Amino acid sequence: MVTINENFLKLQAGYLFPEIGRRIRAFKETNPEADIISMGIGDVTQPLAPAVIKAMKEAVEQMGHKETLRGYDDSGVGYDFLREAIQKNDYEARGVKIDTDEIFVSDGAKCDTGNMQEIFGLDNIVAVTDPVYPVYVDTNVMAGRTGAAGQNGQYEKIVYMPCTAENDFVPALPESHVDLIYLCFPNNPTGAVATKEQLKKWVDYAKENKAIILFDAAYEAFISDEQIPHSIYEIAGAKDVAIEFRSFSKTAGFTGVRCAFSIIPKKLKAYRKDGSAVEVRPIWARRHCTKFNGVSYISQAGAAAVYSPEGKEQCRRIIDIYMSNAALIRKSLTDLGYTVYGGINAPYIWMKTPEGSGSWEFFDVLLKKANVVGTPGAGFGPSGEGYLRLTAFAQPENVKEAMKRFAAV
Amino acid sequence: MVTINENFLKLQAGYLFPEIGRRIRAFKETNPEADIISMGIGDVTQPLAPAVIKAMKEAVEQMGHKETLRGYDDSGVGYDFLREAIQKNDYEARGVKIDTDEIFVSDGAKCDTGNMQEIFGLDNIVAVTDPVYPVYVDTNVMAGRTGAAGQNGQYEKIVYMPCTAENDFVPALPESHVDLIYLCFPNNPTGAVATKEQLKKWVDYAKENKAIILFDAAYEAFISDEQIPHSIYEIAGAKDVAIEFRSFSKTAGFTGVRCAFSIIPKKLKAYRKDGSAVEVRPIWARRHCTKFNGVSYISQAGAAAVYSPEGKEQCRRIIDIYMSNAALIRKSLTDLGYTVYGGINAPYIWMKTPEGSGSWEFFDVLLKKANVVGTPGAGFGPSGEGYLRLTAFAQPENVKEAMKRFAAV
Repeated sequence: MVTINENFLKLQAGYLFPEIGRRIRAFKETNPEADIISMGIGDVTQPLAPAVIKAMKEAVEQMGHKETLRGYDDSGVGYDFLREAIQKNDYEARGVKIDTDEIFVSDGAKCDTGNMQEIFGLDNIVAVTDPVYPVYVDTNVMAGRTGAAGQNGQYEKIVYMPCTAENDFVPALPESHVDLIYLCFPNNPTGAVATKEQLKKWVDYAKENKAIILFDAAYEAFISDEQIPHSIYEIAGAKDVAIEFRSFSKTAGFTGVRCAFSIIPKKLKAYRKDGSAVEVRPIWARRHCTKFNGVSYISQAGAAAVYSPEGKEQCRRIIDIYMSNAALIRKSLTDLGYTVYGGINAPYIWMKTPEGSGSWEFFDVLLKKANVVGTPGAGFGPSGEGYLRLTAFAQPENVKEAMKRFAAV
Repeated sequence: MVTINENFLKLQAGYLFPEIGRRIRAFKETNPEADIISMGIGDVTQPLAPAVIKAMKEAVEQMGHKETLRGYDDSGVGYDFLREAIQKNDYEARGVKIDTDEIFVSDGAKCDTGNMQEIFGLDNIVAVTDPVYPVYVDTNVMAGRTGAAGQNGQYEKIVYMPCTAENDFVPALPESHVDLIYLCFPNNPTGAVATKEQLKKWVDYAKENKAIILFDAAYEAFISDEQIPHSIYEIAGAKDVAIEFRSFSKTAGFTGVRCAFSIIPKKLKAYRKDGSAVEVRPIWARRHCTKFNGVSYISQAGAAAVYSPEGKEQCRRIIDIYMSNAALIRKSLTDLGYTVYGGINAPYIWMKTPEGSGSWEFFDVLLKKANVVGTPGAGFGPSGEGYLRLTAFAQPENVKEAMKRFAAV
């Protein structure tokens, strides 16, 4: 008798975004004329940079000639031309030395943050923030690192670290011992960032406790404050204890193109049950090359163009459009008397829902009365209750219209 | 203390192809002038069909305009235009009814065949053929469904089903009970195919034993014999017990473009430990949408063009080139007195190495004396010892030259 992995049956109903999609569809069925503005799912709306388009067209053309055809990416971990551009622009330019063989190109930070847990033992205690990007949690549930979900949606065995207005949405160190720590800065969903001093506490904790930090930096391109680190490796000693995730999805609008990368430093160690150390990088390399077959050459060629002088300037201009949206959202909502967080170094605005209104309740009100879609904070965890996440990724004219409608609600 | 998943430490040294790569590089270092012909890794050499190139260029252009930009593939399982083309052309045309929501588009059959085991319990007994595509085995080792590897490279707890010249490289039903059965027809590495009668025995076995067949049909486009099934769903009752994997990698030269799909019929069930049944499809949907974020729109647009009238004809012509290579290899080696299998309904030729010469030994001889690279059969399992796999994916002129060099060895 073939058995199912019963850990999957522990998962709570519906991944957040499909649930939002269902509610929108249901609303549209009875209100087919409604002009809905989505500020929910963090999907990009600006077209790709011309330099990226040009590079991808050239790459497609190359695939049509036997002399320039690219088949399997033999390394399985990304073409040299892309990994060298990453090394130079994302790290060397910020004073961080990363070797190209510490860079693993992939098809998405969601995939990498979801898959990375697989190479670690099932006995590790996982720590996540609350609110949290659901993928970190759900993939650990699937693997069997948790117990059942409680009434509040939180799973047994996972250590949840509340992020609230009181701690500026940067969690305190956990009181009980943890082994695998997921951190995301600039944060999805709260839009918070962590300073070097704040991250240093985590690096020190990881060193003292032989823990590993899984650092999701998918939104680093949105940092405007020069004092805020873009990479956890800007913190001394982080290479001993941290894996970093990056993505072209938001940096360069690649949500439909698919390209990302992870950094696993050579110095990073995990341990056998007998306490002896094992290098993590070759284990991930083995996993990556066995279960994955490289990213589309066309996508990699497009990603490399993000680092060209034109590509950099064009992508910067696109990010500026989104961050103007964020500024407008912040100002409009503040003027209306709402309390808002984020939106300065991140494309997410974390707004407090009106007194007495729950996240999903406010989501439904906004959908029905303003035809605007946000993401209920409660979907990210109990500490997200009473918040709504708005993204800055909409078209500027839609953001303006949405803000008008907010005023009318 | 963060622990490593010690199952990874059970894996045998080096995935097969990296080991081949190492030997080639070592040879090139001392023989930089050698003109090496690769008939080893099954990578394509013919440029992509013009219809595919045209569709991908148009898709890239669309990404450069906000009106036509595609972000996340919201469904996460592939655009309707592609799933409808698959439904109609790959299944309906062969009399098989598959619903579009039974189709999961992905970035590779390697990924799908590697990831699928994750949704099943760790207590399942896995059966694979010997020789076998290493991904099926290694991913089960990583998950912890096996014991340690023995001297012959085979893992405890896995049931290996020998495929030899005696059984026409189609395995006999296992003598002990198994739950998850990996079958691949047309076969990689042997090039063997299974008839409807042979597959029916497996479907019946799976029904009787409440087992599931993981059917890898990545090479179905190479079938020339009209009696041979392209899909396991051509066998009555297979939808109750089989998952099918398909790929555009070899069918349309997508090794560097990345697009594939899996079929999980709604009727397919697995079981809780208490014996109650669970639908498999929603479990995989949850896994797919949590750990994966869709295939590049450009790749999906290219894949859909494979099904256009021009695309079909152009891809057919490319396959004919490869199958002419296969025919030439078969004839040349047979004329030289070698015994060869496969190469009629599959792009792989499975040749017996000369009497007394092991797989790796013959690999080294060929590399050094003829500068031709094959894949040692022993790399696929003990029953592959004494064989070499040659692929038909090389350029025709290289195949001709390689055959001349074989004659001289």
